[in-house]
Amino acid sequence: MSKEFFPNVPKIKYEGPESDNPFAFKFYDPDKKVAGKTMREHLRFSVAYWHTMTGDGSDPFGVGVNIRPWLSITDKMEQAKARMHALFEVLDKLDIDFFCFHDRDIAPEGETLRESHRNLDEIVSLAKQLMGEHKVDLLWGTACLFQHPRFTHGAATSCNADIFAYAAGQVKKAMEVTKELGGHNYVFWGGREGYDTIWNTDMKLELDNMARFLEMAADYAKKIGFNGQLLVEPKPKEPTAHQYDYDVGNILAFLLGYGLADRFRINIEQNHAILAGHTFQHEIRLARQNGMLGSLDANQGDYLLGWDTDQMTTSIPEAVAVMYEVLHTDGLAPGGMNFDAKLRRGSFEPDDIFLGHIAAMDTYARGLEIAARMKDAGTVDTFVADRYSSWKSGIGAEIVAGKHDFDSLEKYILDKAPIEITSGRREWVEAEINRFI
Amino acid sequence: MSKEFFPNVPKIKYEGPESDNPFAFKFYDPDKKVAGKTMREHLRFSVAYWHTMTGDGSDPFGVGVNIRPWLSITDKMEQAKARMHALFEVLDKLDIDFFCFHDRDIAPEGETLRESHRNLDEIVSLAKQLMGEHKVDLLWGTACLFQHPRFTHGAATSCNADIFAYAAGQVKKAMEVTKELGGHNYVFWGGREGYDTIWNTDMKLELDNMARFLEMAADYAKKIGFNGQLLVEPKPKEPTAHQYDYDVGNILAFLLGYGLADRFRINIEQNHAILAGHTFQHEIRLARQNGMLGSLDANQGDYLLGWDTDQMTTSIPEAVAVMYEVLHTDGLAPGGMNFDAKLRRGSFEPDDIFLGHIAAMDTYARGLEIAARMKDAGTVDTFVADRYSSWKSGIGAEIVAGKHDFDSLEKYILDKAPIEITSGRREWVEAEINRFI
Amino acid sequence: MSKEFFPNVPKIKYEGPESDNPFAFKFYDPDKKVAGKTMREHLRFSVAYWHTMTGDGSDPFGVGVNIRPWLSITDKMEQAKARMHALFEVLDKLDIDFFCFHDRDIAPEGETLRESHRNLDEIVSLAKQLMGEHKVDLLWGTACLFQHPRFTHGAATSCNADIFAYAAGQVKKAMEVTKELGGHNYVFWGGREGYDTIWNTDMKLELDNMARFLEMAADYAKKIGFNGQLLVEPKPKEPTAHQYDYDVGNILAFLLGYGLADRFRINIEQNHAILAGHTFQHEIRLARQNGMLGSLDANQGDYLLGWDTDQMTTSIPEAVAVMYEVLHTDGLAPGGMNFDAKLRRGSFEPDDIFLGHIAAMDTYARGLEIAARMKDAGTVDTFVADRYSSWKSGIGAEIVAGKHDFDSLEKYILDKAPIEITSGRREWVEAEINRFI
Amino acid sequence: MSKEFFPNVPKIKYEGPESDNPFAFKFYDPDKKVAGKTMREHLRFSVAYWHTMTGDGSDPFGVGVNIRPWLSITDKMEQAKARMHALFEVLDKLDIDFFCFHDRDIAPEGETLRESHRNLDEIVSLAKQLMGEHKVDLLWGTACLFQHPRFTHGAATSCNADIFAYAAGQVKKAMEVTKELGGHNYVFWGGREGYDTIWNTDMKLELDNMARFLEMAADYAKKIGFNGQLLVEPKPKEPTAHQYDYDVGNILAFLLGYGLADRFRINIEQNHAILAGHTFQHEIRLARQNGMLGSLDANQGDYLLGWDTDQMTTSIPEAVAVMYEVLHTDGLAPGGMNFDAKLRRGSFEPDDIFLGHIAAMDTYARGLEIAARMKDAGTVDTFVADRYSSWKSGIGAEIVAGKHDFDSLEKYILDKAPIEITSGRREWVEAEINRFI
Repeated sequence: MSKEFFPNVPKIKYEGPESDNPFAFKFYDPDKKVAGKTMREHLRFSVAYWHTMTGDGSDPFGVGVNIRPWLSITDKMEQAKARMHALFEVLDKLDIDFFCFHDRDIAPEGETLRESHRNLDEIVSLAKQLMGEHKVDLLWGTACLFQHPRFTHGAATSCNADIFAYAAGQVKKAMEVTKELGGHNYVFWGGREGYDTIWNTDMKLELDNMARFLEMAADYAKKIGFNGQLLVEPKPKEPTAHQYDYDVGNILAFLLGYGLADRFRINIEQNHAILAGHTFQHEIRLARQNGMLGSLDANQGDYLLGWDTDQMTTSIPEAVAVMYEVLHTDGLAPGGMNFDAKLRRGSFEPDDIFLGHIAAMDTYARGLEIAARMKDAGTVDTFVADRYSSWKSGIGAEIVAGKHDFDSLEKYILDKAPIEITSGRREWVEAEINRFI
Repeated sequence: MSKEFFPNVPKIKYEGPESDNPFAFKFYDPDKKVAGKTMREHLRFSVAYWHTMTGDGSDPFGVGVNIRPWLSITDKMEQAKARMHALFEVLDKLDIDFFCFHDRDIAPEGETLRESHRNLDEIVSLAKQLMGEHKVDLLWGTACLFQHPRFTHGAATSCNADIFAYAAGQVKKAMEVTKELGGHNYVFWGGREGYDTIWNTDMKLELDNMARFLEMAADYAKKIGFNGQLLVEPKPKEPTAHQYDYDVGNILAFLLGYGLADRFRINIEQNHAILAGHTFQHEIRLARQNGMLGSLDANQGDYLLGWDTDQMTTSIPEAVAVMYEVLHTDGLAPGGMNFDAKLRRGSFEPDDIFLGHIAAMDTYARGLEIAARMKDAGTVDTFVADRYSSWKSGIGAEIVAGKHDFDSLEKYILDKAPIEITSGRREWVEAEINRFI
Repeated sequence: MSKEFFPNVPKIKYEGPESDNPFAFKFYDPDKKVAGKTMREHLRFSVAYWHTMTGDGSDPFGVGVNIRPWLSITDKMEQAKARMHALFEVLDKLDIDFFCFHDRDIAPEGETLRESHRNLDEIVSLAKQLMGEHKVDLLWGTACLFQHPRFTHGAATSCNADIFAYAAGQVKKAMEVTKELGGHNYVFWGGREGYDTIWNTDMKLELDNMARFLEMAADYAKKIGFNGQLLVEPKPKEPTAHQYDYDVGNILAFLLGYGLADRFRINIEQNHAILAGHTFQHEIRLARQNGMLGSLDANQGDYLLGWDTDQMTTSIPEAVAVMYEVLHTDGLAPGGMNFDAKLRRGSFEPDDIFLGHIAAMDTYARGLEIAARMKDAGTVDTFVADRYSSWKSGIGAEIVAGKHDFDSLEKYILDKAPIEITSGRREWVEAEINRFI
Repeated sequence: MSKEFFPNVPKIKYEGPESDNPFAFKFYDPDKKVAGKTMREHLRFSVAYWHTMTGDGSDPFGVGVNIRPWLSITDKMEQAKARMHALFEVLDKLDIDFFCFHDRDIAPEGETLRESHRNLDEIVSLAKQLMGEHKVDLLWGTACLFQHPRFTHGAATSCNADIFAYAAGQVKKAMEVTKELGGHNYVFWGGREGYDTIWNTDMKLELDNMARFLEMAADYAKKIGFNGQLLVEPKPKEPTAHQYDYDVGNILAFLLGYGLADRFRINIEQNHAILAGHTFQHEIRLARQNGMLGSLDANQGDYLLGWDTDQMTTSIPEAVAVMYEVLHTDGLAPGGMNFDAKLRRGSFEPDDIFLGHIAAMDTYARGLEIAARMKDAGTVDTFVADRYSSWKSGIGAEIVAGKHDFDSLEKYILDKAPIEITSGRREWVEAEINRFI
């Protein structure tokens, strides 16, 4: 298929901050080296199939508005193929190396699971061919266990055991095609794994079943030799009133409690983090210091709205915080930064696909450069290290070394003169960060 | 000391719902049997020393307003003694069997930790004597590690190792006096265990230290033969911008991750739950199905406000939810329901102490009776059991029994006809609950 | 059309609280007299066409799930007619006297506005006939100015003047059919009258245009002799990030500022109120003391969720607050209580339509009875009156009478002894309200 | 008094972004010209006496921590004088030209109002002398009507008429001293003008009284020849559960409803705006397009916290939004930007006073420069103008000119072909703004 879907959009190139060409990167310069690696290697950007290719711009108060060239094709499989071709044009023009998808984003649901599998196989085969031609990788695959009415009461946590079985069959296949496409990761986002009201819910059974499901999935990954990371994704609410995978902490508790913590890592999203009351930075930090940081869903929410707006990231301070954490980790790979972000409903033209991604890519590029400069200057890191210096020697070091108990500590402190503490200097720290922006 | 502090307030007695005597219980009839136990045995009410005896009604925008007879006593120790005497008058008149306290609520801080210990010993000795005379028990004790400037950056999670040592010495003593007074539990609420900004924080070291601290505490409890429950209390924010003990799930993750889960249980508060985005019922359910339900802080927050208002519970639906969970557990003991609730600043008269507790006690008494009737009728429980009946036989029972994997489930479901699911009937469930109110 | 759509559902009758028949009222006894009027006259319940008849149970994460008998009819106009017939079966069986609708709920959109008008006329004619047969009234009509892509950037506040014109043509027709059907009110809910981001918005022009639009509408109502109330409905957010009709206060400011306050009143919804940070009671009180209370959208939101859940009201305390305000007003007429409430997505069976309305109707019936008993007892009203008694005589009465200024008041107070104030007794007030529940 | 309070802190000078001297401006260069005026003239910074001079760092969970040299002075009046001297050292060193205060911040409360007046006079006399010596202006004065127990139930809206009288006497004096000091504005922030619960509140009487109070105040200002702006300040909640001056819209409704709109303008604060669910930019825009923008309280809140954190502004995007609005207005004068911001409790050292103000001043300086460059480039403004171009000619211009009604608009649109709308380009707009950061 040689058709060009976005003939008006050129290949996006780096032109620098002075450029006012909307179809150019102002800050993202993919092969520029920053802190020892290229921007491309650090950022590992990925297009989210659902928002960018399949999403129609509908919301609870209005129908689809997105203008997309493939929507005029009425045959569902033909439309799906055209959309897959279009993906690679998007990736090429944006110079993005990865994509992510749910099974049902790329191929239509059939009458039976067998027919759905068949549809999926056909599109996956096309995707594989195109990936080869375009040198694109699959960051992760997943299964959509929330759109179909059968999942109304959940999938792995459904009150109906047949639904659990159906979800198992669907995830099995999704894992197979993820492996087939060389996916670096497989993600579990439990869209309806939660409850509408606890009053009609057997939460114990539901959580036990969720654990059974994940264990079967990990076993199956092993069986088929899928070596990518298995990632659970937190979200506190929406669509259900309470999602079990509330935040990083709740997922940790679940995985540790059911003995699954060494088989899964976590895929963290900014908008989900803030809906749970945490900063994105907190969730990344908590995951990474538990060895659980798997990958990132790169978007931003609106702090004044209570639902998941999934906006393209344009906040430079947010991007700095993310990249600061990433630079203090050993890189994101095999994870990446997936644009789980949708264009605002008012941005319904095809051009907006590109403008939106450019906006976010430039933002993270700046975040990376600023965080690298901060790390290089070391002023903030040094301040923090100094703040905790009492733990490096004397009583602090002894406590860390396990040499104390309440008795010895009471003796040490009982008649001590008032302890002096020093300012946390938050305002200076924030000003210092700003100096690098 | 024979002085009566509240001469205008009689001993509160049950007079029934028709009574318009403000100083009477309308619903709480302590020795009435409900579901096999007396109300008193089910509810295990406790007065919170800090709000009821020590709190002055100040808020960030205004000074103390509470009119309390003991405030005219200028000597700090004499005032502390008078206040302790007054507690027992409050307990007697309200017919409440338990109280809870922080060390610094009951005795003033000294110049050194040694002097603080001495002050505490003196008041504890008085408390012990009065407890014997009044047949009152200590539900739990705790240490105040948040008011003094030394704890500005935290206690166990301070950046300063001496502060950790100080906190250790203070908690050691608080555990000793809790044991001395026969406390049923000891509570850890980490008032400033969290951060103001993650940018100046070594979160890894802070959490490691928090674990070290709790382990020392558990070891010390064992050493001195304190057999009460050790309880950690979740709160997501305030005073710090992010508290580590965010919610039940985050505490579970922490305790499991550091190997402390079998040494601690959880003390859950309604207002803290809703600040974390959960219903109280969710948090209680999550704790109890993990075997971690320790005790309850009985209060209610204002859903439209973003801080901890700690109101006396007057919401009957909230009380029903709590008591439904309690009745489906094996009782609250050795925990109880501690009124971690303060009177509104506008309720500053001594009488309000009694009116506030009556309001809450009557509310929980109704919650108990309604939940007991619901349980007895069984309509909601039966509906829930029916909803999950597919897990009792056939494929569901096989999955629960561990007989399936993704292969066998796919085979089972691959060509199956569409799965029928049935309504969750939330509206009916809520109406059915209302039928018992 | 004699077809019965819900053959399994009987006519719902009052059976009293002891009944466990799900298809019976436990508390709503339509012709029972309370406070001088029948429950029916007080409550003026209305079915919302959009949620109950047209809604399909879809949400942003899933497709429609609702099982509705008319959905098998593929011809849009025939389906619309069947649905209208079904409405009257719902109204009859629930013994509800009113309904409300948007133009596009009842008849499908055509290719041009002219064709849409034609479709609407055909269905309105059927509705009129059925209203006569079933003795049902139209509480209010309105126009849907948010679902179609043309309204993506707003209707009266669109950046495109043609859209303003289109909206004018559509509202003109909606007002005509509302008059034709004897509607008691006409409602303006500006679904997309707001902005996604202020950065691309000429807010001044948009608000000026919104005022122009409402003025034309009021002029047109006068021209065609429509004597019902014209009502503006507040909502703070969703679908737009910021809706201009944020809350009662913001609407008042807008109407007063543009000289429209005597031509419009306000239609208030619980869920919209709490999304704006107010209690429903506050918004009703504010409207009624400004003479602006028009009608109520009777639903409830989930305080822990940040979007409009539009639940059937089952909270008795909420219902008491509403009915207390209504009883202290001169009744709701010509407004009413419209169930702008949708069944949870999990309640997708036809029976749930009835169970959901029964739940809410019983809840408001209890609210009415409890509020009436409270008003009759007078204890709360008397307490409030006493609290403000200083304004009935002396300096207070003089101030109210306009006899003072800063000079005279300073003279009065300059050397006065400390002023005694008394407790606000919130806890007692709440307990007293509970006594009537 | 020649004592220097902050001997370690030099006069803060502009050193540019490369400087790592914490006691230097990196971006604020007071006499640098931007968009035709100096930074100093644009920004009109002001120190808030209460946070910076009087605040002690206490919070609801802990006592005061701030280290301030004057706190060792035990005589209240002497301490107050030392603090006033220290203010001018702060202003001098920070090169800030304005300050703001509440009466009770600067002078201690006396036993009677007369005595309080006397204390105030004494300090005001000192302030006046120092203002002359230091060439400093008073941006605004106000009265503290919320700290003293007498104001527990409100001041102008108290249930007790004597409290109204007291507040009148206190505000009268505060207006006099504001005039005496040449204040540019006088502010009304109704700290406790609202309710704790609507159930014990006569909201109608309270709002009538609030209007009476403001009318008396405006009359008194006129009487004494105070020509500064009278400003009302919105805040939605805290300390009361519901504050009447909720947001700009609610204040407008109140002022318009009581005929006071031409006598008052509005003083807007970022943190109060976001607590009400609005962006600061929205509130500024709404005020300015109603001719009501009076002055700004320059701070920032924490979007994840539900109380007023009053942080020093360090968010560059927030500062850009503010300065964009200011540059599109005719300047802020006679208002200004008052740092109604307090240092975090952890920033308790004297140095933090300077570091905090430097952080915020640099942030606004950057906001100003970025907004000026944006305005100069004109790309965003042009985009917005183009977006609304349909209102400049044809049907749009006719509608604006009042030439249409529903009849003529229906005729115009009835058979029109589908209307094309274009993308709102939010992502591009945000990227374009970032280009200037």
